[in-house]
Amino acid sequence: MSTVDRIALADLTALCAQALVQAGAAPDVARLVGGAIARAEAEGNTVCGLHYLTIFCAHLRAGKVNRDAAPRLVQTGPAALCVDADHGFAQPAFALGLPALIAAARETGIAGLGIQQSYNALALSHPVAEIAAGGLIGLGVAHSPASVALPGVPQRIFGTNPIAFAVPGSDGPLLIVDQSTSAVTKTEVAQRRSAGQPLEPGWAQDRDGQPTLDAAAALEGAILPNGGRKGGYISLLVEILAAALTGATPSIQAPSLGGMDGGPPGLGQFFIAIDPARFGAGTGFGAAAAALAATMTAHPGQRLPGARRRETLTRAQASGVAVDAALLSRVRDLL
Amino acid sequence: MSTVDRIALADLTALCAQALVQAGAAPDVARLVGGAIARAEAEGNTVCGLHYLTIFCAHLRAGKVNRDAAPRLVQTGPAALCVDADHGFAQPAFALGLPALIAAARETGIAGLGIQQSYNALALSHPVAEIAAGGLIGLGVAHSPASVALPGVPQRIFGTNPIAFAVPGSDGPLLIVDQSTSAVTKTEVAQRRSAGQPLEPGWAQDRDGQPTLDAAAALEGAILPNGGRKGGYISLLVEILAAALTGATPSIQAPSLGGMDGGPPGLGQFFIAIDPARFGAGTGFGAAAAALAATMTAHPGQRLPGARRRETLTRAQASGVAVDAALLSRVRDLL
Repeated sequence: MSTVDRIALADLTALCAQALVQAGAAPDVARLVGGAIARAEAEGNTVCGLHYLTIFCAHLRAGKVNRDAAPRLVQTGPAALCVDADHGFAQPAFALGLPALIAAARETGIAGLGIQQSYNALALSHPVAEIAAGGLIGLGVAHSPASVALPGVPQRIFGTNPIAFAVPGSDGPLLIVDQSTSAVTKTEVAQRRSAGQPLEPGWAQDRDGQPTLDAAAALEGAILPNGGRKGGYISLLVEILAAALTGATPSIQAPSLGGMDGGPPGLGQFFIAIDPARFGAGTGFGAAAAALAATMTAHPGQRLPGARRRETLTRAQASGVAVDAALLSRVRDLL
Repeated sequence: MSTVDRIALADLTALCAQALVQAGAAPDVARLVGGAIARAEAEGNTVCGLHYLTIFCAHLRAGKVNRDAAPRLVQTGPAALCVDADHGFAQPAFALGLPALIAAARETGIAGLGIQQSYNALALSHPVAEIAAGGLIGLGVAHSPASVALPGVPQRIFGTNPIAFAVPGSDGPLLIVDQSTSAVTKTEVAQRRSAGQPLEPGWAQDRDGQPTLDAAAALEGAILPNGGRKGGYISLLVEILAAALTGATPSIQAPSLGGMDGGPPGLGQFFIAIDPARFGAGTGFGAAAAALAATMTAHPGQRLPGARRRETLTRAQASGVAVDAALLSRVRDLL
C-alpha cells in the first residue's frame, strides 16, 4: 500500500505550474495546464492527473511540445470554429476556442470547434463542463496514438479515443460523462503485467488478433474497444471527428504521448455545444433532464455520472488533495 | 428453414405503400414510409423491414399513428431546426427536416434537427446517408420505449436507442454505421425464448438486476447496454439528445411500438450535419477519411460498416428482394 500525502489544491496547482515554467512553458500556459493536471488529481481522476507532469516537462524540454506555441482561432462559418494549437498544449487551445464556441452556439443554436496540432487533452470532462456551465449541452471527443484494434483484426487503428458530454443543470452541470471508448486503458494493462496478474476477458488481443488474458501479449497486440465491434464503431466515430475532421495526425501515425520519440503528436479534439432550448423541448429541457436524472438515481447506491468526481473535488478543496507520496516527491524533485 | 420469395424492389415498395394507404395513410406519406420499409428489407436489414408493415397498418387504424398528421418545421436559429411530427410517421418529418438541415449546415458549418411527437425511425442509416449524400457528415440518434437497464439496476430506463453516422465519400457515403446501443434487440431475446435457447452472457438481466441467460427472465427484466455501464452512458447520451432535447416522451413513459396500447409513442430523433471542410481538415477531409477506410479494410475479410447492406441492396435491385415467403404472404393479405 502506497502512502498518501495531502496538499492544498492551490499549492498543487502552483507546484505543477512552477514545474512547467521551469521546463520552458510560458506562465499563462503553465497556469492552464498545471490547473488541469491538479484539478484532475483533485477529482480522483489520476489517469489524467499528476503522473503526466514529469512527461509534460520532458516533452517541453525535448520540443515534443512547442514552448513558443501561439494558438490561432479561425471562424469558418457562423457555427464553425477551428483552433490550430501550434503543437503546444491543448489547454490554451481550449481556453481560446471554448468561449467562442459557446458564443457561437448561443447565436446559432449549435456550434462546433475543431482543434488540430494539439496534444494530450487531459480530462475531457473539463472542457465539456465549461460548455455546460455556459448553459449548453457539451460534447467532446479526442483521439490518441493507436492502441486499440477491432476484435480479431491484427492492426491497432484507434487510440483509447475518449468521448465526454455534460448536461447543464440548475446549479452547474447536472451530469458529466468522460470515458475512453476502449475496454481499458493501456496503463491498466501495464499495471497488470507489472503485478503478474491476468487481464479480464474482452480487454485485449495478441499480435495475431486472438483474445488474450496475458498482459505482455496484449501489449504486443492491442487493447479492444469497449463493447466489441459495435463499441469499436464508436471509437471510429471519435476518430473521424477528432482526427479526420480536424486535420490532425491520424491515431495510427501519431507519435507516442508517453515516450520521447517522434516529435509532436499532432492530435485533434472536437467539441459540439448545443443550446438545449432550440431543438423542441424549449424551456422544458431542464425538467426533462432532471426527471431522467431522478430515474437514474432512484435505486440505492446509484449516482449520476460525474457525481463521484465532484464529491472528491469538494473534499479536496476542503481538506487537501490526496496524492501518492512517492509521486508527489518526484514532482517536487522537478523544481 | 423458411422459404424465400423474390420480389422487385419497386413492387415491394408499391405493395407496402398500397397497404398503408388502405389503412388510412395519405399517398405521399405511404410512399415515404413504404419506401423506407422496402429499402431496409432490400438491404437485408430485416429488423427495420417488412415485419413492421402489419403493425404500422394496425397502428394507423387504431390511431396510434395520426393519419392526418401535418408535420411542422420551425427554424429556431441559423443552425437549429425542429420538426413536430404531429404523431404521424417519422419519415415525412425526416423528408421535411433533412433538406433544411443540410442547407443550414452548408451555411453555418454545423446544424441540428430535433424531431418530436414522432414514431418508429426505422433504419437510421437512411437519414444519415441522405446527409452524407449532401456532402456532410451525418449523425443521428433515436430513442424508443424503455427495454434497457444499467447493469445491476432493476429499472428499464433507455430504449435500444440506436446511433447512426455516415461519412461522405467521393461516390456516395464512404461508410455508414447504424447500430443499437443495447447488447441485443428485444426481438432477438424473444426469438431465443421461442426457440428454447439460452442468451449470451452480457445480454440481459432478470427483474432483480441479476445477470441471466434465461430469455423468459430477461423479458421480465431488462436488456443490457452494449459494453456494460460505459456503454449504458452512450445510451444515456442518445436519450438526452433524442428525447430530452427534442421534447419527446421519455423512453420510460413511451407507449410500445409493437403493441396496441397507450396511444401514440411520441418519440424523438435528433440529427447533426457537419460540413467536413470547416473544422480544420479543409479540403483534406476526403483523403483523411479514405486513408482511415483503407487501413480498416487492409486485412482479409474486413469491410467498411455499411458495405454489406449496400451490396445486398445492389443485388436486390438487380434480381429482386429476397423476402421470407410467409411474411410476404401476410403482407399481401393486407390488401
